[in-house]
Amino acid sequence: MKEFTHIDEKGRAKMVDVTDKGETKREAIAYGQIKLKDSTLERIKNGQIEKGAVLETARVAGIMGVKKTAELIPMCHPLLITGIDIKFEFENATTLGIYATVRTTGKTGVEMEAFTGVSIAALTVYDMCKAVDKDMVIKNIKLLKKTGGKSGTYVRENGE
Amino acid sequence: MKEFTHIDEKGRAKMVDVTDKGETKREAIAYGQIKLKDSTLERIKNGQIEKGAVLETARVAGIMGVKKTAELIPMCHPLLITGIDIKFEFENATTLGIYATVRTTGKTGVEMEAFTGVSIAALTVYDMCKAVDKDMVIKNIKLLKKTGGKSGTYVRENGE
Amino acid sequence: MKEFTHIDEKGRAKMVDVTDKGETKREAIAYGQIKLKDSTLERIKNGQIEKGAVLETARVAGIMGVKKTAELIPMCHPLLITGIDIKFEFENATTLGIYATVRTTGKTGVEMEAFTGVSIAALTVYDMCKAVDKDMVIKNIKLLKKTGGKSGTYVRENGE
Amino acid sequence: MKEFTHIDEKGRAKMVDVTDKGETKREAIAYGQIKLKDSTLERIKNGQIEKGAVLETARVAGIMGVKKTAELIPMCHPLLITGIDIKFEFENATTLGIYATVRTTGKTGVEMEAFTGVSIAALTVYDMCKAVDKDMVIKNIKLLKKTGGKSGTYVRENGE
Amino acid sequence: MKEFTHIDEKGRAKMVDVTDKGETKREAIAYGQIKLKDSTLERIKNGQIEKGAVLETARVAGIMGVKKTAELIPMCHPLLITGIDIKFEFENATTLGIYATVRTTGKTGVEMEAFTGVSIAALTVYDMCKAVDKDMVIKNIKLLKKTGGKSGTYVRENGE
Amino acid sequence: MKEFTHIDEKGRAKMVDVTDKGETKREAIAYGQIKLKDSTLERIKNGQIEKGAVLETARVAGIMGVKKTAELIPMCHPLLITGIDIKFEFENATTLGIYATVRTTGKTGVEMEAFTGVSIAALTVYDMCKAVDKDMVIKNIKLLKKTGGKSGTYVRENGE
Repeated sequence: MKEFTHIDEKGRAKMVDVTDKGETKREAIAYGQIKLKDSTLERIKNGQIEKGAVLETARVAGIMGVKKTAELIPMCHPLLITGIDIKFEFENATTLGIYATVRTTGKTGVEMEAFTGVSIAALTVYDMCKAVDKDMVIKNIKLLKKTGGKSGTYVRENGE
Repeated sequence: MKEFTHIDEKGRAKMVDVTDKGETKREAIAYGQIKLKDSTLERIKNGQIEKGAVLETARVAGIMGVKKTAELIPMCHPLLITGIDIKFEFENATTLGIYATVRTTGKTGVEMEAFTGVSIAALTVYDMCKAVDKDMVIKNIKLLKKTGGKSGTYVRENGE
Repeated sequence: MKEFTHIDEKGRAKMVDVTDKGETKREAIAYGQIKLKDSTLERIKNGQIEKGAVLETARVAGIMGVKKTAELIPMCHPLLITGIDIKFEFENATTLGIYATVRTTGKTGVEMEAFTGVSIAALTVYDMCKAVDKDMVIKNIKLLKKTGGKSGTYVRENGE
Repeated sequence: MKEFTHIDEKGRAKMVDVTDKGETKREAIAYGQIKLKDSTLERIKNGQIEKGAVLETARVAGIMGVKKTAELIPMCHPLLITGIDIKFEFENATTLGIYATVRTTGKTGVEMEAFTGVSIAALTVYDMCKAVDKDMVIKNIKLLKKTGGKSGTYVRENGE
Repeated sequence: MKEFTHIDEKGRAKMVDVTDKGETKREAIAYGQIKLKDSTLERIKNGQIEKGAVLETARVAGIMGVKKTAELIPMCHPLLITGIDIKFEFENATTLGIYATVRTTGKTGVEMEAFTGVSIAALTVYDMCKAVDKDMVIKNIKLLKKTGGKSGTYVRENGE
Repeated sequence: MKEFTHIDEKGRAKMVDVTDKGETKREAIAYGQIKLKDSTLERIKNGQIEKGAVLETARVAGIMGVKKTAELIPMCHPLLITGIDIKFEFENATTLGIYATVRTTGKTGVEMEAFTGVSIAALTVYDMCKAVDKDMVIKNIKLLKKTGGKSGTYVRENGE
């Protein structure tokens, strides 16, 4: 049976020792959604100016958030991130999709970094739009894919 | 029609000027869920030791995350947070609920702080358990309630 | 003769005690320039897409930098910034102007915050363009105006 | 024609992917000036006590600022800085020169780190002296030299 | 019987709610010692140049550390610190004393800020000298005095 | 005679250049104590709920503090920490011992990281308990062991 690697033998949290692991090339892609009123999404989508500001600000925030992961998540190892890409997709009239791809060469994976990128980008979209829409919901933040490392490749199967 | 307060007249992001707003007592409650395998939740829930570590670590991370909100969300105003409470609820065999209540006396509301608390707590639960469950999904992060300030009280109506 | 307020009687650095100062409404406007190759500025200026990215990223970085001032400048007092606005101006074929306006109600002024906003925005422009132009120069960072506080209003006179 | 490496094909900011670049030894030297009243510079220069405090505080701030570069500049890659040196030079009666030398072994260069070191050191000098001189100007922040990496050595030619 | 104010009714950590507390003027003085080899202290003490560097660097670090308290100590409330003073005393041939005085007007006290100032200054002295002395010991960090707030004045009685 | 490696030839602080040092596996163990009233320690120790909260919060804070070392101690090099473990020991009726073990593979040692972990954990215990005990003293923070690097293994001999 797999073990919780962040819990030591007495149930105390610790940062897993990865000193002896080798460095491998790693990538993780996380995804999430924000559900908004259609009028809010319309204003982001069609208003060329506003769109630039909302999504561009959220993208910058997400990228900077990725770099703060080890500072935010207690047991995360610091890593030298070598690539970050945050993308938005208008999925339907009320749903904005967010994708964060993170890459590194290191001893541990970057899924938490990708998750953090999606989360901070989503929170920033909420913040930019909350004056006109307080009902937004951040949904379905999940790992899409993960490569590199001893545990090998993970690809989420269809649906949730 | 309401305006995007973080976008100036030319569509450029700016931090809204609240210099002349009065200080009022404010509270916000945000909520979110993590969906896990029942075996993962069972290990968190029944294992007295592990539960302490996972949820306690997530609680501390969430509280510290609340205090970092203005550093993470570009247009957020810094605030002197005066109270933070993060609670977990085992909603069913595969769902963990997270509640963050944040209070301050200040010129702007604390909904982003409450959202950030829920998000960082959720990411920490993911991080603590990801060795045994990579399929977890963070869901339905939303504002439950907000009081104080000129815009008055917001209470989310039933359902989403 | 005026005294260096950050230096105590024995020449040691300290954070000036402002405990007994009253809170007043304060504003500071700082300014700076970046000198670039005309081809670089042209690419920022005319390329609608690139322009959005370079200046929008620099604006977000500048706003976030303002909020980090007390963390960067050792003797600066933490302040609850209530408004930040960063503007860019194409001054001539090779010069980009940057203006940062910062507001607060507090016990000390916000000129360092405005300076930090200009500096971080300028560094970000440099970073975004350095692949095509390593000769850029950041120039003439200075205080344009300062209001509020016991020392009263400061307005820079013409020229330097 | 060279491309803006931080802008992706649709004009969106991203952190350039350097995963596959090799690690090389790198150094960058940046430079800048502060123009002060001669009486201000005299007080820094001749007052043995004050000089220690102003320049030593600025040096420490500059070194700590270098280490914060990837947190301040959105698209900068985190790097394990292996050496930082900040030097001051009294260039003439009203001009203080600042040099920052930064070294690492890594996948990207350290010019932004050197620029940040000069900028934060300059801002700190301004902060330490602003009670006696609000007219100071930070000038001519530029890259003097850069070695290592695929793009090879850059040395600024005489003058600007 | 007094209660642990950071522990809620079920033993879970939370940030104590101080929303309804009034703001009062507050001060705290913390103290600590470093025990070094006499040759190490001699080098700090007599070497005019080195002394400047070691203690001045430690003082700047301590002041910056004070401002980071709420980021380091999970349940600490953020405060607008209004004054910080770090002093060193050569107590005897092998002992360096450190005093941190912190002031604010706020809803909670600043003893943790004063403690953090002493601790970070002490760690910095250790770091600056560890190449010549690995046996240093940081000792007797304690609260000397605390004024302001509902709990009134605390003054440590003689000795420990 | 050994030299202060953080002080350059003119007595100015600098970050030691380790660019050309090789990477070796490194470990450091630091230790410290808190002296509390026996009633305070009893409440931490026997109260199953409170114990979880106090020590678990302190452990998380200590681990996160380790990762902030290079941000807190001016001349410390950033390192990719690969393992952190914080342990508490009830030494006697009034003394809590704290051990921090830190590991990395890098160019410089991790003793400052271990010291920072002990210090932040101790400060957090103080913060959690200060409502019931203001007389606590943090004592005897020292290096127990250090391995790796050119200077070889250090083991503290018996006693102080």
